Amino acid sequence: MRMIKWQNGTVITPDQTKLPLQEVTLEIKTVDQMAEAIKTLRVRGAPLLGAAAGFGVAIAAYQSKAKTAAQFLAEIEVAGTLIKRQRPTAVNLFWGVDRVLNKAKAVKGTVEQLKTAVIQEAQAIADEDAAQNRAIGKHGAELIKDGDTVLTHCNAGELATVEYGTALGVIRAAWEQGKKIKVIADETRPLLQGARLTAYELKRDGIPVTLITDNMAAHVMSKGMVNLVVVGADRIVQDAVFNKIGTYGVAVLAHEHNIPFYVAAPKSTFDLTRKASEVEIEQRKPEEVTHVGCQQTAPDGVAVYNPAFDATPLKYVAGIITESGVYTKKHFSKFNPKFLL
Amino acid sequence: MRMIKWQNGTVITPDQTKLPLQEVTLEIKTVDQMAEAIKTLRVRGAPLLGAAAGFGVAIAAYQSKAKTAAQFLAEIEVAGTLIKRQRPTAVNLFWGVDRVLNKAKAVKGTVEQLKTAVIQEAQAIADEDAAQNRAIGKHGAELIKDGDTVLTHCNAGELATVEYGTALGVIRAAWEQGKKIKVIADETRPLLQGARLTAYELKRDGIPVTLITDNMAAHVMSKGMVNLVVVGADRIVQDAVFNKIGTYGVAVLAHEHNIPFYVAAPKSTFDLTRKASEVEIEQRKPEEVTHVGCQQTAPDGVAVYNPAFDATPLKYVAGIITESGVYTKKHFSKFNPKFLL
Repeated sequence: MRMIKWQNGTVITPDQTKLPLQEVTLEIKTVDQMAEAIKTLRVRGAPLLGAAAGFGVAIAAYQSKAKTAAQFLAEIEVAGTLIKRQRPTAVNLFWGVDRVLNKAKAVKGTVEQLKTAVIQEAQAIADEDAAQNRAIGKHGAELIKDGDTVLTHCNAGELATVEYGTALGVIRAAWEQGKKIKVIADETRPLLQGARLTAYELKRDGIPVTLITDNMAAHVMSKGMVNLVVVGADRIVQDAVFNKIGTYGVAVLAHEHNIPFYVAAPKSTFDLTRKASEVEIEQRKPEEVTHVGCQQTAPDGVAVYNPAFDATPLKYVAGIITESGVYTKKHFSKFNPKFLL
Repeated sequence: MRMIKWQNGTVITPDQTKLPLQEVTLEIKTVDQMAEAIKTLRVRGAPLLGAAAGFGVAIAAYQSKAKTAAQFLAEIEVAGTLIKRQRPTAVNLFWGVDRVLNKAKAVKGTVEQLKTAVIQEAQAIADEDAAQNRAIGKHGAELIKDGDTVLTHCNAGELATVEYGTALGVIRAAWEQGKKIKVIADETRPLLQGARLTAYELKRDGIPVTLITDNMAAHVMSKGMVNLVVVGADRIVQDAVFNKIGTYGVAVLAHEHNIPFYVAAPKSTFDLTRKASEVEIEQRKPEEVTHVGCQQTAPDGVAVYNPAFDATPLKYVAGIITESGVYTKKHFSKFNPKFLL
């Protein structure tokens, strides 16, 4: 099922903050609405953000009344900058914006030709993501045996992508191959993407899923209830994988229990020009920790630390499942800017 | 501040499910009310449960209309059995019930004399716990250096005890010695004792506390933000410490980051006749995971695994801080039923 669609200048996507209790469809008609949807996680998930970023610039292109190509390019650059500013850690956001901007710059045509190029490029990002996730699923499913239980953190599912999912694409592909697998989903505080989205999406598709709180992962591993871990990624640098807060803890725990820990992500997630120490980690507002929805759970005014992501050093990662195959430990020492050219 | 008091047959204690948003005082007048309060965690925390168990039997004793000692003993045994049944993992519940029952059996007097003995013994449990926690605090504070940041999980605070706290007693004692310490509190899903109780209690007392979600513990450790971990315990067996779910994960993460992991608990928490494999872990209802308060966070009918406790093998424990001093790794191999006699 397509999670994001372009319809005559409007971007159609589910409001993920409302799931699983309400299925609300967003109709995003302005760049500001797209920025707000990204900031507030109505649209979230690294690969989906890449497509949303492209479509966000496409909205600016669609609405442009520019008379010259230079003016048009300036307008869509402003839109791109606004979109990039919403989530500092998600590399796909930068990647999606830059891809459509670079396309526009390369075209050298009339404003109308540039508009068409931008919208087509945004659509291409979406189409490629859908195809890549099927490929990720196919490669990753080979790592899952019949009867395995797979633990996952956050939501790297269909809802995080244009279609099919990355980590959940791997699980979905194994399931479609007839393997009788089970999934354990971490609820993933503070925003509960595991409880709200992963549990929803797997249950909807009939894949057996059991929900736990994040702090139960160690216990279920110690009881032998987990055969492997698969998660998504928001950015992969030379020495680490950035993903939803809590991923690093799961990786350490998997390592301690000799459970292989895999990352499933398209190659657009790689940012091999950087090391982990150079990546800014987004800090989000305290209310996400002191509240769950409208329910306050902590005393007024308590200090909060709320990083949205953490970095998992590659030593804890058994493999990175991409659309081109699985990178394993033997590849990690080569993770530099030339590696993926 | 006394967390539990006996007043003419009524047990006075805060309703901990209402904190931190409301300060509601429970007046428990029947054994059934005490059982309900224990089951629903209105009264919780291992040492406080020991006192509550004693007072629960004392209520049965106080209300007894028995004509003979044998009839009286039978009545209070029924009360004790009901109380023990509420939480299968918490050894203090069994210990508190058995201590007052054994006292009653030993007395050999009139029903009135037995009643007095039961009520006095329950009061003695409470008084001893308060004194023990000061001693635990004194021994534990020596492990904390000026400027340290201490991470804790769940609430082993004043609210978990009759007075002063165990893990938070250690923190409180270091603070009272003038050490400029900080605390990082795990929120402790599913029931959020860290967010609701630890953050409340430390903030009330002016001790600097920062709240995180459970899955942020690994990240803050990797950033060098934690100098040591101190938690409480619900039961300590020959080879492991049982405590609130999530404790084991924190211990593994502390081990991986070379951060000492301490347990603070009175010796009544020891159950050295058993190994970890022989202890039943309480499974609680799915709604605790699928909801936060009245807010639903997961799809209807999703499968849930909800163990209330986990077991931390002693290899991850740097020391157990008791009222008699700190047991360290060199003592652990001797942890058998004769060890504490």
